[in-house]
Amino acid sequence: MVSEKMYALGAQPSAIRDLYEYGLRKAAEVGEENVYDFTLGNPSIPAPPEVNLSILQHITQDPSIAVHGYTPGAGDPKCRAAIADDLNARFGTEYSLKDIFITCGAAPAITATLAALCMDGETNEVIVNAPFFPEYKVFANNSGAELIILPADEEAFQINFPALEAAISNNTRAVMVNSPNNPCGVAYSEETIKHLANILAKRSAELGHTIYIVCDEPYRELYFGEGAVPFIPNYYSNTIVCYSYSKSLSLPGERIGYVLVPPVAADSRNIYLAVAGAARSMGHVCAPSLMQKMVTDCATVRPDIEVYKKNAAYLQEEMSRIGYRTAHPDGAFYFFFKAPFGLTAKEFSDMARDEYNVLLVPGGTFGCPDWLRLSFCCETEKLERVMPYLEKLYKEAEK
Amino acid sequence: MVSEKMYALGAQPSAIRDLYEYGLRKAAEVGEENVYDFTLGNPSIPAPPEVNLSILQHITQDPSIAVHGYTPGAGDPKCRAAIADDLNARFGTEYSLKDIFITCGAAPAITATLAALCMDGETNEVIVNAPFFPEYKVFANNSGAELIILPADEEAFQINFPALEAAISNNTRAVMVNSPNNPCGVAYSEETIKHLANILAKRSAELGHTIYIVCDEPYRELYFGEGAVPFIPNYYSNTIVCYSYSKSLSLPGERIGYVLVPPVAADSRNIYLAVAGAARSMGHVCAPSLMQKMVTDCATVRPDIEVYKKNAAYLQEEMSRIGYRTAHPDGAFYFFFKAPFGLTAKEFSDMARDEYNVLLVPGGTFGCPDWLRLSFCCETEKLERVMPYLEKLYKEAEK
Repeated sequence: MVSEKMYALGAQPSAIRDLYEYGLRKAAEVGEENVYDFTLGNPSIPAPPEVNLSILQHITQDPSIAVHGYTPGAGDPKCRAAIADDLNARFGTEYSLKDIFITCGAAPAITATLAALCMDGETNEVIVNAPFFPEYKVFANNSGAELIILPADEEAFQINFPALEAAISNNTRAVMVNSPNNPCGVAYSEETIKHLANILAKRSAELGHTIYIVCDEPYRELYFGEGAVPFIPNYYSNTIVCYSYSKSLSLPGERIGYVLVPPVAADSRNIYLAVAGAARSMGHVCAPSLMQKMVTDCATVRPDIEVYKKNAAYLQEEMSRIGYRTAHPDGAFYFFFKAPFGLTAKEFSDMARDEYNVLLVPGGTFGCPDWLRLSFCCETEKLERVMPYLEKLYKEAEK
Repeated sequence: MVSEKMYALGAQPSAIRDLYEYGLRKAAEVGEENVYDFTLGNPSIPAPPEVNLSILQHITQDPSIAVHGYTPGAGDPKCRAAIADDLNARFGTEYSLKDIFITCGAAPAITATLAALCMDGETNEVIVNAPFFPEYKVFANNSGAELIILPADEEAFQINFPALEAAISNNTRAVMVNSPNNPCGVAYSEETIKHLANILAKRSAELGHTIYIVCDEPYRELYFGEGAVPFIPNYYSNTIVCYSYSKSLSLPGERIGYVLVPPVAADSRNIYLAVAGAARSMGHVCAPSLMQKMVTDCATVRPDIEVYKKNAAYLQEEMSRIGYRTAHPDGAFYFFFKAPFGLTAKEFSDMARDEYNVLLVPGGTFGCPDWLRLSFCCETEKLERVMPYLEKLYKEAEK
């Protein structure tokens, strides 16, 4: 007698986790240096030195109760103000602490936001363009929404606009945007964002209800493409931002992020309160207090992403030289490439695993069953060592 | 256009928070020493020294990625093993890391547990005896259950068994137990727990489905009554424990706790997986990784609760001497007393606030509208200073 829905979510096998665990077992057998695990998106660069310095200062100098005590549910006002100030300085906005709700990372930020936007007892739909982070489906479903998946634009990995236009309905509450994208590393261009904003503004007016953009932005600071990543609230006012410091400060285990509800968004105060209510209903009390102190100190700290940039360039050059069809990453730490010669990604992934202990995530789970994700949050040397195997695999696939 | 349910939860005024904020405003006006705020359950003793020592060691000696990286969703295996070992050493149990799921504190532990136990699409009921922590209602509702509240036993603050027997039905999924209790500080006796176990075993058999006990145990280590607090899984095998280190290690802001699903509980593996699935659906990724390292080191550390014990004894003696009817706290840091001479708790709380800046939480929100909660997580000296006012208030109420 347990909830079948929750049991299914807990018991569901995960392709990524299964591959990762295979890698651990195999490494014990044949040695770590002979297993090429590119499955997980765990940052490989250490947290910037300011992070541990801040933690040390608070632990050694502040009273225990001030460091480890409850903060308000929305977060320590100083931390919220520091985040708003940083955004304002970079993006010319006028946010205040009242617009920021601090969460235990991006995942609960997204669940609370979607729950806030979905109408009780109605049919709710949230649209996402493939490829997409698969947990969005879990989060949408938990909020009472169906996730509508648009087929990928396999040329440029921008938005499939004809499919988007066809998918928008009276039930559409939000479009999820994740740029730079997990799993393909591509960022949406300014042109794409403008076109998206135009469509949503037009359709919101026609339908008589606001369609929001919900941005999942953990990779905002991990961008090495041309120019700057467009800050979406500046193109479409009805945008709610879900942010995480997991990748930008290299601390994915610490669970610290936020929801930004810009005051110019339609119904912004009500949405903010509904986000707070949704978070509360899921057991949010506050985000970890020590990490809030750290973010207060480190809100303006940016990561050193040289190694990610170098890895992306190396993979792009080598994989193209071999003949692979690839996405061109602008950010994050994911390289997305197509299984060659008509193989499915699953077939190619199995081949790579079984022949050379090379672990690559097949893209079915991301909505692209012919593509594979290689997480390049690692030393470049590991990529250089695996490249001969990727070349051999290409030639074998050709046969 | 927002979820009305979530908006209501976020916008709902909170008697406790309102009083607390009144206190802050008043303190700015008349001086902190002239405001007697007893509203919040924020521990007043610092975290044991082992806590910050552990944090310092990991920050200064471990690689950044090892300290701040993702852990498995269920938690770092070492941390889970340390928790199981500590429980086994104290309670003679045989738990293993597979029985422990680490969460961001007790609140998400409870929401995930209730969501795991509630049947999709059925009427679900969770029973709690007043007085009770008011968020249980929010958590139960979010899991699709109604919270059935049993009237308080205002004599001994044990369980109202006739009401319990009448309330159990085919829809009953669980009975919530919080002992030592917030807000009354009383712990259930061994006799109470045995009687509860007998009733639930009998009724589960009659109804043909298991009724679980869900224990919320943040105050387990804050016990100063006679003997030891009964460890409920040793009296009723179908018990699921939700624990938090907030109070026992004085770090409520850090969000670290766990769900224990004992292997002897009916359907235990399925419940464990359903807890994992429910947590995932609410955006749980892992509990804060640095705090997991700390708990691994500090699983056997107990708080020094001398000041709480002393405060409880002082309040018990003085408040009884004045003439108040009181609960007799065995643990936690809450003193519960009845508004005298037929006043409602709200009337008495308003009087105390308006005349002497004494802030006490009226018990309506806990299911006891005639009783008040005084949080004594403070220096004894503050209690000594407020006592003349509590004596005056008693005499004024008599008029």
